[in-house]
Amino acid sequence: MSKPLFIRNANQILTFQGSSQAPLTKEKMGKPYVIEGGSVWVEDGKIQDIGSDEELAGRYREKLTEAEEIDATGKVLSPGLVDPHTHVVYGGSREEEFQMRLNGKSYMEIMNAGGGIHATTRATQDTDEEQLYEESKSRLDQFFLHGVTTVEAKSGYGLSLEHELKQLRVAKRLNEDHAMDVVSTFMGAHAVPMDLKETPEVFVDHVINEMIPEVAKEELAEFNDVFCEKGVFTPEQSRRILEAGKEYGLKPKIHADEIEPYAGAELAAEVGAVSADHLLKASDEGVKRMAEQGVVGVLLPGTAFFLMAESANGRKMIDQGVPVALATDCNPGSSPTVSQPFIMNLGALKMGMTMEEVLSAVTINAAHAINRGQEVGSIEKGKQADLVLFDVPNYMKLQYHYGMNHTHTVVKNGKVVVEGGQIV
Amino acid sequence: MSKPLFIRNANQILTFQGSSQAPLTKEKMGKPYVIEGGSVWVEDGKIQDIGSDEELAGRYREKLTEAEEIDATGKVLSPGLVDPHTHVVYGGSREEEFQMRLNGKSYMEIMNAGGGIHATTRATQDTDEEQLYEESKSRLDQFFLHGVTTVEAKSGYGLSLEHELKQLRVAKRLNEDHAMDVVSTFMGAHAVPMDLKETPEVFVDHVINEMIPEVAKEELAEFNDVFCEKGVFTPEQSRRILEAGKEYGLKPKIHADEIEPYAGAELAAEVGAVSADHLLKASDEGVKRMAEQGVVGVLLPGTAFFLMAESANGRKMIDQGVPVALATDCNPGSSPTVSQPFIMNLGALKMGMTMEEVLSAVTINAAHAINRGQEVGSIEKGKQADLVLFDVPNYMKLQYHYGMNHTHTVVKNGKVVVEGGQIV
Ligand SMILES: [Zn+2]
Ligand SMILES: [Zn+2]
Repeated sequence: MSKPLFIRNANQILTFQGSSQAPLTKEKMGKPYVIEGGSVWVEDGKIQDIGSDEELAGRYREKLTEAEEIDATGKVLSPGLVDPHTHVVYGGSREEEFQMRLNGKSYMEIMNAGGGIHATTRATQDTDEEQLYEESKSRLDQFFLHGVTTVEAKSGYGLSLEHELKQLRVAKRLNEDHAMDVVSTFMGAHAVPMDLKETPEVFVDHVINEMIPEVAKEELAEFNDVFCEKGVFTPEQSRRILEAGKEYGLKPKIHADEIEPYAGAELAAEVGAVSADHLLKASDEGVKRMAEQGVVGVLLPGTAFFLMAESANGRKMIDQGVPVALATDCNPGSSPTVSQPFIMNLGALKMGMTMEEVLSAVTINAAHAINRGQEVGSIEKGKQADLVLFDVPNYMKLQYHYGMNHTHTVVKNGKVVVEGGQIV
Repeated sequence: MSKPLFIRNANQILTFQGSSQAPLTKEKMGKPYVIEGGSVWVEDGKIQDIGSDEELAGRYREKLTEAEEIDATGKVLSPGLVDPHTHVVYGGSREEEFQMRLNGKSYMEIMNAGGGIHATTRATQDTDEEQLYEESKSRLDQFFLHGVTTVEAKSGYGLSLEHELKQLRVAKRLNEDHAMDVVSTFMGAHAVPMDLKETPEVFVDHVINEMIPEVAKEELAEFNDVFCEKGVFTPEQSRRILEAGKEYGLKPKIHADEIEPYAGAELAAEVGAVSADHLLKASDEGVKRMAEQGVVGVLLPGTAFFLMAESANGRKMIDQGVPVALATDCNPGSSPTVSQPFIMNLGALKMGMTMEEVLSAVTINAAHAINRGQEVGSIEKGKQADLVLFDVPNYMKLQYHYGMNHTHTVVKNGKVVVEGGQIV
């Protein structure tokens, strides 16, 4: 059993109280429930108590001497950030491709030079499990340094049974070995492999009949995701894949309406997806149905920034009642970053979200987007002690001092994993 | 005398050789002159030698044992970043104003609520010299943490002789006390004070007849800057102020064509300004004249990002022959950041600059924009040992892994000031 942890005198604590049962929508997204000046008592990896420093120092008098202390004076205490959409387990690196793009090369020229998703598929297939594990592990450290304490991780760069399982096994081992919580999503339907381009249905059948049963049998994923997009998987193919997953207990997620409107948002509502992601071109009708069904909209403004495109309309989705979350989309092609703090800046500056909505979107709503709303995402008694201390006197400065990472201390399951901006 | 410093085995060294005499233009901006695998020998605060690790270890055999060593394996060694446009000496903080903006309030509503430049003027006037010194000093530490080793600092939040001198004295003391090099610019003509709104000529005369002579007499600045913009100072007033400064040895700079085309770029060329800054609406003719006269264009894409506006057209200016530099514009209203690394991302993603041009723009061209091209901004024998080690294996990854600060080690005048991302 670890020592108690006493986090003392934070300038502000963002509690998001009462949000564990369902994601926040509309006005509620704008209410982080801030305690001005307060302390938190942590024990057994859980948040045990929240109150004034005096109250807690009195209540836990007998344990004070054994407790580890963190002086939070002048800082903001937030729930650990949650990143609900990443492809963090990948091989290779594609900076040359990005350089070609900056030098004015077209998408087709880059594809023809061996770029794009198939480049990462080749690299991931060619990277053995140990190497993949080590590279991804160091990315998890980087996530910690940016205040993130839970990440979702998708497969989808294997595109064959063998390599999809390899990716998912790496994610599972990381979840076990690394302090980070890694929540796994199977995404065999990320692209049609090159050699099946002419017969996509053959691949869809393979995903449904071979991959999903094996992933379920080995308990390698909680979610099942599909890239529903013109030229990738049709809504009909996507529906089949997501329904097949449901029969094996895999909850649906969907990459929807990123490049063209394709009724992805509508499909998400229809199949009862936990989240629909991207949504740059989602139709009004689709957004309405998502709101009705409580499908979380996971928006990825970093991807738009890096691809020099317009962001999704977060403002409008929130106004229409969609519970919105934000994610990095961490991947080597369209978003090679781990910085949720910068994604927050983009939420405010590029999607019309308020500072408070942005905070909800990277904490409790992000947790709900991966079915972790009852465990993490808010600072409430009994929840996992996943906490981040930002080196700013008030939460507004997280957005105001833009382009900077203000993460100072990170606590994961009650244990300090980052201090003074460095891994401990 | 300090110990020699031996920086060993960097993956890449960005030398920018041969750039000390004049800023880089056109194709030359795209040539950082990269040494793949190399070491640097530093002594007496200067760069003494650059070569392979073996060469240098042999050449300085007798001093090896006394030298401090930095293992640069796997990292990129760059000239320390230069930030040629900041307002880093200021009082107060305006995050509430930014929050109002995100919540949909108009510029006029914010002004009427006491916001805008006059809010910072009041706060700076009300902050005593010691406090102003301490607050600005901690910002210089933040600049170090982001790889910046030289900053320019403007006055212009005093707007009275007393408070302008106070701001400049703080900058001068910081330059003396803090390891950072702080290059001072007088900018009494930053705004017309509230009480002289109806008689701006009275203020212009005051700047010319009272402020400039006193600033020159006390040797408080090298440059003289003016905000030439419709509703602020006219080109005619700006010309008078800049010419008056020249008589006292203050070199001209100009905030030009930010909000509306106003012939600011043309004026910069006419008066022989060292730089013209902002330039979002500069005319083609103005840009052409800047190129002819070698006026450095200092672009501030962070300001555009934070104000949700379009950036200046960096691509076009480079193609037309303007030597382009990039800066944070660090100030509490329109750009509250110290992150030159993020400004670099914006240069690439928002202004069409290549990775190499971006690097030139924050090193040697930024140095030339404040007349420091012969002292800093490149890694050449005899130059100041201002260096930054980025924790990336190649310089492309500075842009590729966007939204992140990759600064690992910073050397200032041959002394390590940041290590492992922390101030030492
Ligand atoms: Zn994705
Ligand atoms: Zn300025």
